[in-house]
Amino acid sequence: MPSSVDEPRPAVTEAIRVVVHPSHPWGVPESLARVPGVEVITPPDLDSLSECLADPRSEILVSFIWTDECLSVGLRWIQSIASGLDYYPLEDLAAAGIRLTSGRGANAPAVAEHAFALLLAVTRRIGKSVRYSERALWRQGMGFELVGKTLGVLGLGTVGEEIAWRAKAWGMEVIGTKRRPGSYRGCASRVFPPEETVEVFRRSYAVVSALPHVKGAPPQVGAAELAALGDGWFVNVGRGSVVDTEALLDALDSGELRGAGLDVTFPEPPPQDSALWRHPKVVLTPHLGGFSPEYADRLADIFATNLRAFRGEGEWVNLVV
Amino acid sequence: MPSSVDEPRPAVTEAIRVVVHPSHPWGVPESLARVPGVEVITPPDLDSLSECLADPRSEILVSFIWTDECLSVGLRWIQSIASGLDYYPLEDLAAAGIRLTSGRGANAPAVAEHAFALLLAVTRRIGKSVRYSERALWRQGMGFELVGKTLGVLGLGTVGEEIAWRAKAWGMEVIGTKRRPGSYRGCASRVFPPEETVEVFRRSYAVVSALPHVKGAPPQVGAAELAALGDGWFVNVGRGSVVDTEALLDALDSGELRGAGLDVTFPEPPPQDSALWRHPKVVLTPHLGGFSPEYADRLADIFATNLRAFRGEGEWVNLVV
Repeated sequence: MPSSVDEPRPAVTEAIRVVVHPSHPWGVPESLARVPGVEVITPPDLDSLSECLADPRSEILVSFIWTDECLSVGLRWIQSIASGLDYYPLEDLAAAGIRLTSGRGANAPAVAEHAFALLLAVTRRIGKSVRYSERALWRQGMGFELVGKTLGVLGLGTVGEEIAWRAKAWGMEVIGTKRRPGSYRGCASRVFPPEETVEVFRRSYAVVSALPHVKGAPPQVGAAELAALGDGWFVNVGRGSVVDTEALLDALDSGELRGAGLDVTFPEPPPQDSALWRHPKVVLTPHLGGFSPEYADRLADIFATNLRAFRGEGEWVNLVV
Repeated sequence: MPSSVDEPRPAVTEAIRVVVHPSHPWGVPESLARVPGVEVITPPDLDSLSECLADPRSEILVSFIWTDECLSVGLRWIQSIASGLDYYPLEDLAAAGIRLTSGRGANAPAVAEHAFALLLAVTRRIGKSVRYSERALWRQGMGFELVGKTLGVLGLGTVGEEIAWRAKAWGMEVIGTKRRPGSYRGCASRVFPPEETVEVFRRSYAVVSALPHVKGAPPQVGAAELAALGDGWFVNVGRGSVVDTEALLDALDSGELRGAGLDVTFPEPPPQDSALWRHPKVVLTPHLGGFSPEYADRLADIFATNLRAFRGEGEWVNLVV
């Protein structure tokens, strides 16, 4: 439960309307409804979302991802549910004077545990065992240890650091990449700039990507990086567009790569005929790394802080525009 | 590589014969062969094992599990590969003056990581996702967080403690059971005697069993324990006989139990018609928790120490009989 629940309610005569996008993780409307002075509106589909936002009282939108239905004249602030801000028209929002705040941090513990769930699913043969199990087959094979090995974390931001400290706490050496390595204050022993990503692959036993989508950028993880990793493991809990899928499949089939755990793909879901679905060395989860019962409450805490700022009573957090 | 490799070779005129049971984990003969002064014999099947042990020079056996083919007149020392000593005829060995040493510790890091692989496989929907993935289906659903929750570890021995410190390092509270709680010197915040196992289930969000098989003992994990756990998670990396399988399935189907990750079952493998194979809330691995490339080298280190003791040059480790 968010800490805001027990705070004294401010003397607001009318509750403020908060519209929640139809596509939202479990529990978000319920957690937001516990923030004092808030009336949560949950349109069931995109048409009713448009209708709802057309009401000039709809100044606040809580949304997982940008869709054009979110455009409205009355909108003044968007609290994003996700930490990634894919496809938000940042310049248009700025020009229209609409604030955008991200959900950064709310999903970080869940995503970090999910990254290890995927990594251990490939190193400990969980994926292969489940597939054999479905055929009532008991097929042993080699498992692998993480302790004492090097983990490379691409994108040492909020989520990346949650992954990094867990790895270090388990006896791994941690290295990684960050846009500005000089500003890094975390637990990784060495941090490289994005241009030296291949060096992280070369030095690592396993690599986890927590990188966001960057509009128009080519995949940062391709054939050269995967070749540098050699007989290791790759996990992606950031965004699918960061990885060259063909190069990944090639490294699994013709290269040395031992396994890949993917919570994100590009596109999402993968095409019906994609080799990712049934590849014996791949464990695929449907972009649920950020989900947890605690997630919605953490987002509501961020929202509550920003609602005070919206009312002119404090500082914004996670302010993007 | 074991530390023993670089040690100066003792002046032994003839290499000592070491017979390795045909059923052994990957790499064990190769790692043992690197111990100075050792000739490793690897009979390919149980018949040739009997023949081989009939040779009076066969004084040393390295074995994963006791089978009657291991009986021989010349045998003087058995180095067990496993940490569990199921079915070894301890009294008979003592009467015959045959030493038995366990492999305790060699597999502990791998088993601990495997325990988390199974726990995270159920909390993070890995098993369900792999099953959907095989049908090219992208089906999201709730994931769960471990951080901040309580983990109960049944059997706080070498393996149990490796699980405990990893959980604590990830921000979990750890409690558990131990035969003699008073002798506990680990990181769990509270340790109960085996008679109070149900209390550990009552206080935990997830429970991992690292308990060994105890001859003739009834299952320690049954309906009462699983009911006390409620809507939590259960993992077994110890021995399958510790769990009442029917009670487990009942807790999954009619009770609140959210999921179970099992590396061990009773019997092993489960019967072809067992519901464990395809149960959507179960992730089953074929008793491979202890496997890793590092395992054989750690066992060879234990063996090398005990070989010196066998030659009267030092202390035994993991001595059972």
